[in-house]
Amino acid sequence: MRQSTRLDTDRIRAAREAIDPIFLDTPLYRCEALDPELGCTVSIKLETANPVRSFKARGTEVVASQLVDRGERAVVCASAGNLGQALAWSGRGRGLAVTVVASRHATAAKLDRIRALGARLELVDGDHELARERAAAIAEHEGIRLVEDSLDVETCEGAATIGLELVEALPSFDVVLIALGGGALATGVGHVVKSCAPETEVVCVQPQGAPAMTRSWHERRVVTTGPTDTIADGVAGRRPILAILDDLLLVADDAVLVGEASIKTGMRLLFDHAGLVVEPSAALGIAAILEDRDRFAGRHVVTIVCGSNVDTDAYREWVYAAPV
Amino acid sequence: MRQSTRLDTDRIRAAREAIDPIFLDTPLYRCEALDPELGCTVSIKLETANPVRSFKARGTEVVASQLVDRGERAVVCASAGNLGQALAWSGRGRGLAVTVVASRHATAAKLDRIRALGARLELVDGDHELARERAAAIAEHEGIRLVEDSLDVETCEGAATIGLELVEALPSFDVVLIALGGGALATGVGHVVKSCAPETEVVCVQPQGAPAMTRSWHERRVVTTGPTDTIADGVAGRRPILAILDDLLLVADDAVLVGEASIKTGMRLLFDHAGLVVEPSAALGIAAILEDRDRFAGRHVVTIVCGSNVDTDAYREWVYAAPV
Repeated sequence: MRQSTRLDTDRIRAAREAIDPIFLDTPLYRCEALDPELGCTVSIKLETANPVRSFKARGTEVVASQLVDRGERAVVCASAGNLGQALAWSGRGRGLAVTVVASRHATAAKLDRIRALGARLELVDGDHELARERAAAIAEHEGIRLVEDSLDVETCEGAATIGLELVEALPSFDVVLIALGGGALATGVGHVVKSCAPETEVVCVQPQGAPAMTRSWHERRVVTTGPTDTIADGVAGRRPILAILDDLLLVADDAVLVGEASIKTGMRLLFDHAGLVVEPSAALGIAAILEDRDRFAGRHVVTIVCGSNVDTDAYREWVYAAPV
Repeated sequence: MRQSTRLDTDRIRAAREAIDPIFLDTPLYRCEALDPELGCTVSIKLETANPVRSFKARGTEVVASQLVDRGERAVVCASAGNLGQALAWSGRGRGLAVTVVASRHATAAKLDRIRALGARLELVDGDHELARERAAAIAEHEGIRLVEDSLDVETCEGAATIGLELVEALPSFDVVLIALGGGALATGVGHVVKSCAPETEVVCVQPQGAPAMTRSWHERRVVTTGPTDTIADGVAGRRPILAILDDLLLVADDAVLVGEASIKTGMRLLFDHAGLVVEPSAALGIAAILEDRDRFAGRHVVTIVCGSNVDTDAYREWVYAAPV
């Protein structure tokens, strides 16, 4: 195993220059109304108040600006929706032709936004892993850049700019809770936190219904799984990538799994007590607290609210059917 | 009538120094998903992603820091809820004893937060105007400072820091839509916009069920009304103050009234297409567009989303009962 991650803190600082300021320096604030519900001090890092309603543009801004610098004209990615929307936004502003491959079963609101932003959207009859294969085939056939979320270090280093904003905050945090999917957010933020504030615990959170990367982290080897079963579409991968796992092993203090009921309750608590609409992936941190209150009791926890792209009807069903 | 407002742009710039940065430089972004619904380009200035979920702390931070500089120990205000919550927050951090007087019929979530922040809360059996009278009596009896929202120029100049952030944005806006209640937000933002970007139209928006200040603006004299009838609790005053009206006459290009159905539809559009939970007052700008699409067609409109403190059950009823 490597001794250091693929990420570089100087490059992460430089990445800030490539990112439209609209995605930087996002709100970070204590939400005291959550304290009694959760038994700990909760701060929110809000990554949804921007034109694509997720943190993903921090990465796509870096990718797109590099492509333009190299004279590239087109780019393709597979996406559960948020990366595609962000790449569509970043590409449109720079004159890049963007193709997004997604599962036909992806969140409709995300697909609608990808189309509305002018990207070419290709749907596959399968899950996100099939979309990844199809995107790779398009890239090879058309000779254009394939953006691979979490594998391409720019996507991790873009996300890592969130970490810079966290470690510069005062007072510092005891724990950072990070949604774990492909790993860009977790390795990015984790890299910066472990470099600049190593005493802060980095805890990654994944749904029990999509546990591949968490199992891989615990077993210290790539573990693939069968079909995923979770409402947290943004983190539902089945085939972790070794290079990313290696990074995650270096920066994560723990990786935990949470149940669907806790995710829904987390979404409802954020709605009721923070006035925030979040997508399921963005409630994973709150879900982790709900499932292990003793672990977090009395500590200052920051959770990254990483996206708010939901289908409204599904959101209402999830949030109001949840027990609190 | 005066030739200039009571506000001072240099003091507004200085006010930024007194305000905790957590309330400054709030998100400002285009929300393209609203464009097709509204027929214009909509940008959102989001004042809800902070510890009190409204813009009011910009003013209370200025007030509280001045009180501390003068050696004061206590302060009282009347509030529909957001000012009280903000003053409780600003006072707590500076060791000020805060008393808030509110109507027993105020939004329960707002009253709960005022108590949770350690303020003394006194409820009156009447509306906001009675709370104002009671707060004045407490101030006189106890010999402490009465904070009068919108009348105290610090509350206007604190709110006006939003204006600074708007006029520094590029591209500039054609129209700024501002919720109109007591007038602090409208005169504050309006003062800065008319000073620094006079070509931008300043349009104030009030509910038909609480039209006192709007009628006063149109008649150029103070018009009081009977009991208010609106879900927009944050802007439901009946007795405009002459000094504030005079300022508003200098900075507002128009003041319009909107119906309750439009406010609810505005709340729902912000939920569905922007992923934002807002209180009724914060949807007044969208409601104004809905009621006069031709006026705003093709223009770039910024609306200040000024608060998100709602009772969850009421929110659900308003938002899902609304026709779209």
